[in-house]
Amino acid sequence: MSDQTPAFALELHATDGAARTGILHTGRGDIRTPAFMPVGTVGSVKAMLPQSVRETGADIILGNTYHLMLRPGAERVARLGGLHKFCGWERPILTDSGGFQVMSLSKLRKITEEGVAFQSHIDGAKEFLSPERAMEIQRLLGSDIQMVLDECPAFGGSEEVIEKSLALSMRWAKRSRIAFGEQPGKGNFGIVQGGTFEHLRKRSAEALKEIGFHGYAVGGLAVGEPQAMMFETLDFTVPHLPTDRPRYLMGVGKPDDIVGGVVRGIDMFDCVLPTRSGRNAQAFTWDGTLNLRNACHAEDTGPIDTECRCPACRQFSRAYLHHAVKTNEIIASMLLTWHNLTFYQDLMAALRTAVAEKRIADFARTFIARYGERKSG
Amino acid sequence: MSDQTPAFALELHATDGAARTGILHTGRGDIRTPAFMPVGTVGSVKAMLPQSVRETGADIILGNTYHLMLRPGAERVARLGGLHKFCGWERPILTDSGGFQVMSLSKLRKITEEGVAFQSHIDGAKEFLSPERAMEIQRLLGSDIQMVLDECPAFGGSEEVIEKSLALSMRWAKRSRIAFGEQPGKGNFGIVQGGTFEHLRKRSAEALKEIGFHGYAVGGLAVGEPQAMMFETLDFTVPHLPTDRPRYLMGVGKPDDIVGGVVRGIDMFDCVLPTRSGRNAQAFTWDGTLNLRNACHAEDTGPIDTECRCPACRQFSRAYLHHAVKTNEIIASMLLTWHNLTFYQDLMAALRTAVAEKRIADFARTFIARYGERKSG
Repeated sequence: MSDQTPAFALELHATDGAARTGILHTGRGDIRTPAFMPVGTVGSVKAMLPQSVRETGADIILGNTYHLMLRPGAERVARLGGLHKFCGWERPILTDSGGFQVMSLSKLRKITEEGVAFQSHIDGAKEFLSPERAMEIQRLLGSDIQMVLDECPAFGGSEEVIEKSLALSMRWAKRSRIAFGEQPGKGNFGIVQGGTFEHLRKRSAEALKEIGFHGYAVGGLAVGEPQAMMFETLDFTVPHLPTDRPRYLMGVGKPDDIVGGVVRGIDMFDCVLPTRSGRNAQAFTWDGTLNLRNACHAEDTGPIDTECRCPACRQFSRAYLHHAVKTNEIIASMLLTWHNLTFYQDLMAALRTAVAEKRIADFARTFIARYGERKSG
Repeated sequence: MSDQTPAFALELHATDGAARTGILHTGRGDIRTPAFMPVGTVGSVKAMLPQSVRETGADIILGNTYHLMLRPGAERVARLGGLHKFCGWERPILTDSGGFQVMSLSKLRKITEEGVAFQSHIDGAKEFLSPERAMEIQRLLGSDIQMVLDECPAFGGSEEVIEKSLALSMRWAKRSRIAFGEQPGKGNFGIVQGGTFEHLRKRSAEALKEIGFHGYAVGGLAVGEPQAMMFETLDFTVPHLPTDRPRYLMGVGKPDDIVGGVVRGIDMFDCVLPTRSGRNAQAFTWDGTLNLRNACHAEDTGPIDTECRCPACRQFSRAYLHHAVKTNEIIASMLLTWHNLTFYQDLMAALRTAVAEKRIADFARTFIARYGERKSG
């Protein structure tokens, strides 16, 4: 590592039970943990300018390798100076490996030991992703946190199916780690798989620790299982992860999922929910969600949330947002996305404070009592 | 008029040939003229926050009575505190009368002496717009500049058709002016019709002056006629308008149309072109227009315009904008709209300076030589 580049390292400031808070240092800046990462699928957090994303309080965003490898292409992004410069976001970016979207979006997939062949969902072009290519793409993008390629089995698979998939994912993790090599100020995260089977999660965590990563993700959750099953899986998985490395719960989630994840020792989250919901008239508040499409908002001069600091709440009424939703004005997506990302970041800030003040259990109870709880997957 | 409310009055600072520059004072703030008014059809300048519209340099925006009367409805906007508060824009707003959209968007129109009956293009509801109702709606919205209801005949009508339509429009203008009454700090504009017939334009202008308005618009242009015919019509119409009142060329236009309008003594313009084009990958520059969808931009690391001060040009490459257009990201509409509105406002500022420095003819020549000229309608 060069003398100029800060080490990629987690600095823990406080713990409260399993919950932790601190700073994840990277070569491109610090990330306050627990952190929520807005999703910038193809190089834009939808309906937001990068400076607005930063204003919500985000320290890091996520980019999708699958989408970016298809358009505009990793080599093109590299020629244009890397993803940060390309999309106007100078702070850290985490990229996934592309594996999850290959499974959920592409056509005609064929998985072999070497990797996964698939057809682009955009134009049907034949593509191939191996652990080595997934890491090469993320390096070309200039990603600060690069995820190993893994296989993502659907929820509800038999133990035999999950075990076989896990074995492949662990072999791919090893190849990914070798391909990552050493990149000053950047990190390579392994992904714990194993479905909801305790012994498989343990086996996966041990295998990844043996390889040695800069951080550890929990994958294969938030894929349709009930919240209680997700929390139970975290309860028996997180204790097998090193305490001195960041822990990332992939694709999670609803606000109450995140609160439960922090209580169980997770440091990082990502989800399309605040942005996607924002484009679909849904607003998050401390009292649960609102659907601005509902006629009850048509003459409501109050804001979404009187306490919120975002432009949607400071400058516009629910009546206006309802009107903008009904008339399909782009400003509805812009304002509701901004609000939702602000809510998520304010929630993370409150969680960090609660851990620092050693009252996370109280905070979680109070939050759930007011917000409500997710009943199903 | 109350002592607190500034008079609605045009203060001319300089003239150069027929061209003029100055300030139009209103109760809600000053408008630098010549002025371009971005169009905020249903209470939002599409893909822009109000503060961003202001940052481009706009002193006034336009709202469409037709759209707003259908959704959310004028009485509802009034109950919610007026259009300014509703849409978050505190500066002046001009509203049209709804007449033009009734003709172009609605179904089953029937025009009588009393007004126009039509069906909403949204849900087929039966609606009626009279001169009195058009003014009532604009008063309910709280508009600062309220336009008379007129009939807008299509381009290419016979002299007889245009003459008959004009007579009706002048009777409606009189009724509109009476309905407007006196509103401190606000203005009521008449609309000169008469197609491309010199004697009809003169007759229309004389009739409106006889009624007496706070400003005079030129209507019925930019409806498909060649640019030369529009300019010729301005050449024989503007001299019949009072010099001490603002002149507004409705629905115009392309940058070279605006330059030609300013040369001919027009003070105010509005057009959906910069916003609509922005949502369709087109960017305006001093060297003409660019289509960001074109593959030639895919690896261009330069901005749309190296001289431009907008966020699209300061922070993003043509390559990124091309990518955002191709992937249908909302940020493409946001950034290109912002750029185009900035270009239009910078053009207006340059025109104001050129008039003040008495070099508008040179400016127009130089502009057209670089930008190009509209050849057809």
